[in-house]
Amino acid sequence: MDNFKELVKSNRSCRRFDNAFALDTQTLTDLVELARYTASGANNQPLKYIISSSREQNDKIFSCLTWAAYLKEWKGPEPAEQPTGYIIILGDTTISNNFWCDHGIAAQTILLGARARGLAGCMFAAINIKKLKSLLAIDDHLEVKLVIALGKPVEKACIDDVGDDGDIRYFRDENQVHHVPKRKLEDLILKAF
Amino acid sequence: MDNFKELVKSNRSCRRFDNAFALDTQTLTDLVELARYTASGANNQPLKYIISSSREQNDKIFSCLTWAAYLKEWKGPEPAEQPTGYIIILGDTTISNNFWCDHGIAAQTILLGARARGLAGCMFAAINIKKLKSLLAIDDHLEVKLVIALGKPVEKACIDDVGDDGDIRYFRDENQVHHVPKRKLEDLILKAF
Repeated sequence: MDNFKELVKSNRSCRRFDNAFALDTQTLTDLVELARYTASGANNQPLKYIISSSREQNDKIFSCLTWAAYLKEWKGPEPAEQPTGYIIILGDTTISNNFWCDHGIAAQTILLGARARGLAGCMFAAINIKKLKSLLAIDDHLEVKLVIALGKPVEKACIDDVGDDGDIRYFRDENQVHHVPKRKLEDLILKAF
Repeated sequence: MDNFKELVKSNRSCRRFDNAFALDTQTLTDLVELARYTASGANNQPLKYIISSSREQNDKIFSCLTWAAYLKEWKGPEPAEQPTGYIIILGDTTISNNFWCDHGIAAQTILLGARARGLAGCMFAAINIKKLKSLLAIDDHLEVKLVIALGKPVEKACIDDVGDDGDIRYFRDENQVHHVPKRKLEDLILKAF
């Protein structure tokens, strides 16, 4: 349990990567394999995946993402710090029109698996979906649910308690450490029977 | 990574428990703490939790759940095999009306954490929400997103490949082993760049 807790705590959303560190198809395939083993509403398993570790396709995917909305001065990683792989999670509407929270279950499993390998990543729901579907020729029957950016992290992040002002916006300090305020545990548990 | 893969594979939805094995508030609190460290859309953290390890409240929660829809002959665990704890995941609409897939991220993290402790559980989205909100006096501004049943597992489960007929319905064999057909990895990855 302690190991797993450390894994969860170390699994911070990462937005700056070593772009010289190449990811390969096998690594991304292994991460999707983890998602294959996860729970799915009514076991329907309506999620499908596109993986990319090619520079050309990565650049296309990158151009469709909105980075770190709370960091107003930062428009996303410079080329040397861009992700080197992506996993796009799609909902196959020929299987179901209700994906429940399957993509959350899958994405968290993928990111924990990446972290266990010394990698890191970030889930994106703020995506230019029309552009992404066009650039990657994604069929109409597939709904883009999430994009996960992956790579070798070059960013430090830490968890803070949310302060009395209730501000949950993450920020970078003067040493470029990324701070993420999390609500206190006693504020999360409403009743304990 | 191998350890984590084994954890994910061993984390099967469990529906039969040792009802003599008591869970305590601290264990459930520790599991919610894991969820506290997870990613949340725009870091809003709109999820709240109710935990229960009391027999009286457990019975109320149990009465609101629909068990294993594909097992037509089975109406849910008998008293000796009922869960001994629950974590109810709620969306706080005073924080946000969009919970994205935060509850999937949180629930999977809780279940992996439970499995790492030798426990097991099952996510429920098929819930009599009106009854649950009434029985537990859950405030109107809270949306019930998921119920996680937890306990010490007494059920064996295994993963099979989905066959050529495409049937994804889980089933129990003559030894009461629960089989879960999962789509093949090659059917999940549509494109690999």
